[in-house]
Order: sequence, then structure tokens, then C-alpha cells
Amino acid sequence: MPVLRDKYSTGTYRVLINKRSEMLEKLKNEVYKANIDLVKHGLVIFTWGNASGIDRDCGFFVIKPSGVDYDVMKPDDMVVCDLNGNVVEGKMKPSSDMPTHLYLYQYFKEIGGVVHTHSTYATSWAQAGKDIPNIGTTHADYFAKEIPCTRQMNENEVFGKYEEDTGKVIVERFEGLNPVEVPGVLVQNHGPFSWGKNVHDAVHNAVVMEQVAKMAAFSFSINPELKMNPLLIKKHYERKHGKNAYYGQ
Amino acid sequence: MPVLRDKYSTGTYRVLINKRSEMLEKLKNEVYKANIDLVKHGLVIFTWGNASGIDRDCGFFVIKPSGVDYDVMKPDDMVVCDLNGNVVEGKMKPSSDMPTHLYLYQYFKEIGGVVHTHSTYATSWAQAGKDIPNIGTTHADYFAKEIPCTRQMNENEVFGKYEEDTGKVIVERFEGLNPVEVPGVLVQNHGPFSWGKNVHDAVHNAVVMEQVAKMAAFSFSINPELKMNPLLIKKHYERKHGKNAYYGQ
Amino acid sequence: MPVLRDKYSTGTYRVLINKRSEMLEKLKNEVYKANIDLVKHGLVIFTWGNASGIDRDCGFFVIKPSGVDYDVMKPDDMVVCDLNGNVVEGKMKPSSDMPTHLYLYQYFKEIGGVVHTHSTYATSWAQAGKDIPNIGTTHADYFAKEIPCTRQMNENEVFGKYEEDTGKVIVERFEGLNPVEVPGVLVQNHGPFSWGKNVHDAVHNAVVMEQVAKMAAFSFSINPELKMNPLLIKKHYERKHGKNAYYGQ
Amino acid sequence: MPVLRDKYSTGTYRVLINKRSEMLEKLKNEVYKANIDLVKHGLVIFTWGNASGIDRDCGFFVIKPSGVDYDVMKPDDMVVCDLNGNVVEGKMKPSSDMPTHLYLYQYFKEIGGVVHTHSTYATSWAQAGKDIPNIGTTHADYFAKEIPCTRQMNENEVFGKYEEDTGKVIVERFEGLNPVEVPGVLVQNHGPFSWGKNVHDAVHNAVVMEQVAKMAAFSFSINPELKMNPLLIKKHYERKHGKNAYYGQ
Repeated sequence: MPVLRDKYSTGTYRVLINKRSEMLEKLKNEVYKANIDLVKHGLVIFTWGNASGIDRDCGFFVIKPSGVDYDVMKPDDMVVCDLNGNVVEGKMKPSSDMPTHLYLYQYFKEIGGVVHTHSTYATSWAQAGKDIPNIGTTHADYFAKEIPCTRQMNENEVFGKYEEDTGKVIVERFEGLNPVEVPGVLVQNHGPFSWGKNVHDAVHNAVVMEQVAKMAAFSFSINPELKMNPLLIKKHYERKHGKNAYYGQ
Repeated sequence: MPVLRDKYSTGTYRVLINKRSEMLEKLKNEVYKANIDLVKHGLVIFTWGNASGIDRDCGFFVIKPSGVDYDVMKPDDMVVCDLNGNVVEGKMKPSSDMPTHLYLYQYFKEIGGVVHTHSTYATSWAQAGKDIPNIGTTHADYFAKEIPCTRQMNENEVFGKYEEDTGKVIVERFEGLNPVEVPGVLVQNHGPFSWGKNVHDAVHNAVVMEQVAKMAAFSFSINPELKMNPLLIKKHYERKHGKNAYYGQ
Repeated sequence: MPVLRDKYSTGTYRVLINKRSEMLEKLKNEVYKANIDLVKHGLVIFTWGNASGIDRDCGFFVIKPSGVDYDVMKPDDMVVCDLNGNVVEGKMKPSSDMPTHLYLYQYFKEIGGVVHTHSTYATSWAQAGKDIPNIGTTHADYFAKEIPCTRQMNENEVFGKYEEDTGKVIVERFEGLNPVEVPGVLVQNHGPFSWGKNVHDAVHNAVVMEQVAKMAAFSFSINPELKMNPLLIKKHYERKHGKNAYYGQ
Repeated sequence: MPVLRDKYSTGTYRVLINKRSEMLEKLKNEVYKANIDLVKHGLVIFTWGNASGIDRDCGFFVIKPSGVDYDVMKPDDMVVCDLNGNVVEGKMKPSSDMPTHLYLYQYFKEIGGVVHTHSTYATSWAQAGKDIPNIGTTHADYFAKEIPCTRQMNENEVFGKYEEDTGKVIVERFEGLNPVEVPGVLVQNHGPFSWGKNVHDAVHNAVVMEQVAKMAAFSFSINPELKMNPLLIKKHYERKHGKNAYYGQ
């Protein structure tokens, strides 16, 4: 059983610490499983993806280690970070995209999990540099609007704090957008990030984005002049997520 | 073994009721299997699909519960409804698309099963808002004409009785079409519905629609000016379904 | 063990018949396996394909029964036909495409097996009504030229001896082409037929056609102005099939 | 246990030879596994691919035998060649593409493994005769530039030393390019070759090329006017491969 670092493991905080430790173990298992699920859903080959989950109470988030193969990875390899980006627990370096996850947790207060992949169709839209228009109820069941694509990053951003600034251009793109209603983004020339109320939910939305991206590509190929019925966007999003939602049990 | 609700379980109808109950158990198993088959055929991810079957003698139909994962779902979770849309048996809410299934059962008297999915290529044509032209014998083996796409729904329809009116626009689109000869439709900006003489048959036609949609997309991409031989449509449809059909044993 | 029909099973021919019977059992197993392989290679769903093999010595060919599911089919269900198209052995009706296979065996004397599928990409080219141009060494390793597409069939052909005349338009399209050097064809608005020195080889060529069709579709989508190097066609075909072939052991 | 040929197995070199023999056994296992991995990654059907690895110390390389099925192939079937292209050990003929591998080992001194496939999307770009532009970070994580496509080969090259000259046109195309920074190429109208520091790495790069080729095809289909941010190419390539690389453990 892992122990938290010294500054947390002495004094009167022991009981609290034990509880935290339990929660973190649970979160590490969830984050581990979410990373494995990315492979199962066909969103990731090699080490091209990472999932993280946050415990807002203790202010720590758990993320995949950098460049570790999914088939040898274990729950204990997950890395625990605090909201300053410091590693709090874990023997490995966190995913190189950790600062992007961190930035999203700092600015999107309602989210509990973040996923990044290079999944085929979502990445193709990101490389195309275009928002994925909301053209069907599959999309509208999860996203209240188009899936936005960020602007190109400039020299300072790319060669400065690149991963953190990737988070910054995402947040900038969400000016006027609600990240709960639009749980994902395309980073231009790179690939998709998605999020959700927890890491499992973020994986779910990553699968949705990939499928929606795929069907949008085929739809425009069949009919470049296609027209969406905007009423359906409102209807389907609210049927699942509105205050009078009636989908599911 | 489940029992029917009170109003059916007393009086002189007991023998009849036992027989009905047996038939419903059988139908629940068939509908359960059909829903699982949608996943096996790759037409459905998560909970994005539903299949139902009707017993025309007793006037009940059985449908998947709403938003339940396929891997935990059991035959007993299937929901039994009457032709007024009331739940007659089952602990869960029926699929939110239940009123569409109901409408189709009411207006297409010959059908015994209905399937709805968001399968990739059929949904792409639905999002493109275009009928799938009958351009090959694969299509003509099952559909005597193009696979029609419905018109866009208006505000009253979308924000009124949305699921029921989805059925209404389907039936409206079949003005002059025989649903037995054209066992499926694309609901614009949404996805495919298919049907058949029973729920197994409806699943079969859902697979056909997806494959036909896929090949039509590629065919037009290869040659936008392609020409179908209309003689083949008549020949192939009748070879399998006409009164002198000679395909199969 | 099955017996041949009466006219073959009496008289002085008994020894010969026993030998024939052994050869037919072997052929039935090969044809059965070939049909199953079509499913394994992803070329066939449901009952949309059929494979046959011929024993030129005894003048019989063995073919899949019509409309039988692959997962219940057994080697003994294979149907034996003579070169007049009569069923010589077997309890079931042969594939409805049997007369096309027969026609090909009659006119293409060198072939020992025939396969028909509705595989996705080859069928898409057939629906597009276009020859698949020979644009790469994968194609040239197996086909000395383009994969030809037949002309549209006329009313007499479609409503007369349709399956036989499907064979006729294939043979007509091979005017000036050597079926050994071009082991497959697209029947317009229908799908691919392939053949080979035996039924296993015909399945192999069906897989090649599907893969070649897929890559040709993508290649033209990437660059509609692409140019093949004709020298490579000659080189690759001869490297594998010429009199100085040096590919393989 | 196999023995090296006579001229190597006598005299004072026995100890050295034993050591070489051990290394070659290890290399044969690696090359065998790499060839099997090509199938697992979906890059190869039938016998359409080959992988090799070199031991620069002893000057031998190990390659797949020609035209042998992957499911019957064993590590001992691998063929050992010297840098004159002579078979040093092994009962079978080496892959017909052996002289291309040899040429690459001779001119690209830093590489330790070579892979050739006919994988679907990379081959489609090769057939299209176009470089794969570097339009995303997935590409830039592995290739510092576009993936180049060779020129068409002339009559002397095709009908002379074809496989060796395939290597020659590859090396010619790398005028001004560093094969370590660009670990793969498209041979026009043929298919991809990739390489790496060892055979495992070459397989890895073959998978990358196929995925990058796939996403590039879709990206240009979505937006033919797409623009890459060149800063990202430098950043991502150096993040993984530069002297201050910080990706991975």
C-alpha cells in the first residue's frame, strides 16, 4: 500500500490522510481502468492517449504515466499530482500532457475527468482545422453545439509552456461556451480532448466524439449541402441533459 | 415467473392469460436476443439502439428498457407495452423511442418487429438528408425501391409529441410505398429505423441497411455519374420475395 | 457416406465410382472450407456469397446450397452438380448463382474454382460500373490488367436465363482477355466474381480483389490524376506468374 | 541448433562463432516476432510483407523467407544473409525484396531494422504517387518532415536489378533528408518501407505510417485547404527525439 509523502504523513492529520489515501487508491483504479478502456474502444494505439481524474475535495488528480505501454501498466503506476502540477505520489513521470489536464481542471470547475487521444476521425477533423458541425441527434444527445476547434498556437506558446498553453487556447476557445454542455474540443493540428463529471464519463465522451466525427465526415462527403434542423439539437440535448430529461431509468 | 397486472390476472380469463404469459416470455427472449444482436453486428455502441417485437394476437409489444447497458441487460428487463403505449409489465421505463415503435405497429399492420440504431453509414445518409438510391442487387435483394429519408420535423412536432411524431413523419413518407417492400427508413438528421415480419427480421434488415448505405457512399465517391439498371431491381427483389421466388431452400 | 444416384451406382463402373466418390468427398470438404473462409476473411455477411470447385476428370462441380447460414452449414450440405446443371448429389438446392458458376466452368477451361461475394469495396466498384484500374504492384501481383466490369444486362437476359446470362456477359467481357491472367470480374450493379486453379485459389483472389478495390478507391480520392507505371504491371505479374517467376519457395 | 556454414565453423574462430551464433539466434527470434507483429497490427494479409533486422557487428542480417504463410512460419525459417546478399544460413529463399533491405542497410548506416508492407492507407498514398504531408502532431511525433514518395522507376531499373534499384530510388529520394529523422518512405505505385534502430522499431514506424496515412487522407477529404502549423512539427519531433526530449520515462 503506497504512502503519501512526508509532509502529509505526520501530525494530527493521520486520520484525514488515511481517508485521502483510500480515496486516491479508488481514483487510481478508476483512472487506470479508464486508460485501459481507451484501448478497448479502439481510440488509442501504442501510448497515444491519456486519461486523468480529479478528487476535488483533496485537490489531487491522478493521471497516466508518460510513455508507458498499456499492456504492462498497473493501477499503482498512476501518478498523483496536486493543483500546482507537482507529483505527490508515484514512481514515474506523469503524462507529458499533464499541464493541459491541470489547466482544464483549474478553469473548468465542474469537470472531474479529462481524456486526450489521437483517435482517427476526431484527429482528422483537428488536422483539418475545422469545428465538427452539429448535424445529427447522435451529436446533439451529448453536445449542445458544434465541437469547437482551437486556433493555431503561436511561437511563444509552442516553444514556451507548450502543454499548459494548449490548455489556455482550449479555455480561450470556450469564451461564451459552457464546458458542461460541450464536453470536448479539437486542438488544431493535434487531436481531441474530452472531459466529463468523472474520468469514466470523459472516456464515454471521447468515444462519442470519435463516432460523431466519423459520421460527420461521411455525411458531408455524401451531401456537402446538408442542412441540420436546429430544433433537434435543443430537443435531443434537453431530452438527455435538460431539467426535464426523460432518457434512461 | 412474472405475472401480468391485476386487471388481467383474475376471473375467467386465467387460462388465456397463462397462454399469453408464455407467449410474452418467448417474445421477451426474442427481443432481448435481438437487442444483443445489434451489438454483435456492430450497429450499436453504448445504449444507442433499441429493438422491439409485437404479438398481434394479444396486442402487446415488448421493447428494450431505456438507457440500460447491453452487457448487464437481461431478458426479464424487457418492457411489455399495450397498443395505447401503457406499460403492462416490467420494472423499468421503456426506450424513449417507444412511441415511434408504437406508431409504426399501428400503421404498418404487417410488421412484427422494429429496430432503431445510430449505425455509422445509415446515420450518415440520414444526416446528409438523402434517400439511399437503389444502385445494386444487394439493395434490391431486400428493398424494392430506394431507402427513403423523411422530411425535417417542425417545431410542433419536435417540442410536442416528438417520438410519436417521428413515427408520423415516417408513415407520411410511406405515402405510396409498401412498408413490406421497403422495410426501412432514414429519419432525417437522426438515423435509421427498420422493420420486418418479426424482431429477428428487423435486425436483419438493419444490418442490410447499414451495408447498403456503406456501399452506396463508396460507389458515388468512385463514380458520381453511376447508373443503375432498373431491370435488376425488379429481378432481384422478386427472385427473393416475389410469388415465384427461387432463392433459398 | 453419401451414394451417387442410381444411374451411376450399378454395373461394371463400381470401382470407378468409388474412386469418384472419394474425390467428391474431398472436393466437398474443400468447397465447404472455402465458403467458411469467405466469412473469416470478412467478405461475406449472412448468406451473401458462394464458392464452388470442379473436378474436371469426373465432370462434376460442388457448390454451396442456396440461402443456408454459414454457422449451421456442414460439408455434407454441399451440392454436387454435373456440367448440364443437374444436381447429382445432395439434399438441398444449389446456390441460385449456380448457372453462373457452370457457365464459367464451361468457357474458362483452365479454372478449378469460382467465388461470388458482395464484398464491400469490390461491390462498390461494381455499383459504380467501372473497371478497377491497375494502379499498384498489389494489383499487378495477381492481375495482369485492370479488373474488368461487365456491361449492363438487357431485358431478355435479366428476365430470361438470368444467372446463366450473367455468366455470358462475363465471358463476353473477356473477349481478348485471358481469365488465367485476370482471375476476376465485376458484374455491373451486382458484385465481384473471382476464380482460380482451385476453390482455395478463388477465395484467395476474392480477398485480393477486395483489398485492391479498397486501395484503388482511396488512391483516386487522394489523387484523381494519379499515374501508374506500366512497367511495374509487367514486372510484378511476371515475378510471380511468369516462366521465370522467382517469388516464393 | 543450426550451424553456420563450413567456412565459418572451423579454425581458431570457434569461440567467436559461438557468440555470433547466439546473437543470430536472438536476432532470428526478434525478426520472427516482428513479422508476426505485422499481422497482429493489421498491416499484412497473406504473405504481403516482410521484416528484417541486422547485426552490424557480425555484418549479417536476418529476413523473412519468401512467400511463406505467417501461420506456419517458425523462427528457424528466418534466413540469414551477409552484406553481399548471399544466404549464410537457412533452408529457404529469402524474401524477394531482400536486395531492397540490403541496399537500405548499406546506405542508411544508422538503421537496424527494415519493414515492407502493403498496408491499406500507406499503399493508397504510394499508388497516388504523393508525399504524405506533415499535418499533425501524430505525424510530427515520429517524422520531422513529410513522408516522401519516390519517383517512378525506369525500364532499366524495373527489368534489371529491380529490387536493388528499388533501394536505389529510395536512397536517391533521401538526398538532403536524414533517414533517422524520416524513418519511412513510399515507393511509388508500390507501398511503404519503414525502418528503425532495430526491427521492433521498424514495425512500430510501419504502424505509425499507416495511421498517419489514414488520418491524412480523411483530413484532406474534410478540408482540402487545411494548413499545418510548422512550429508544431519542430516542437513535437523534438519533444520526443530532440536532445532535450521529455516524453516517456
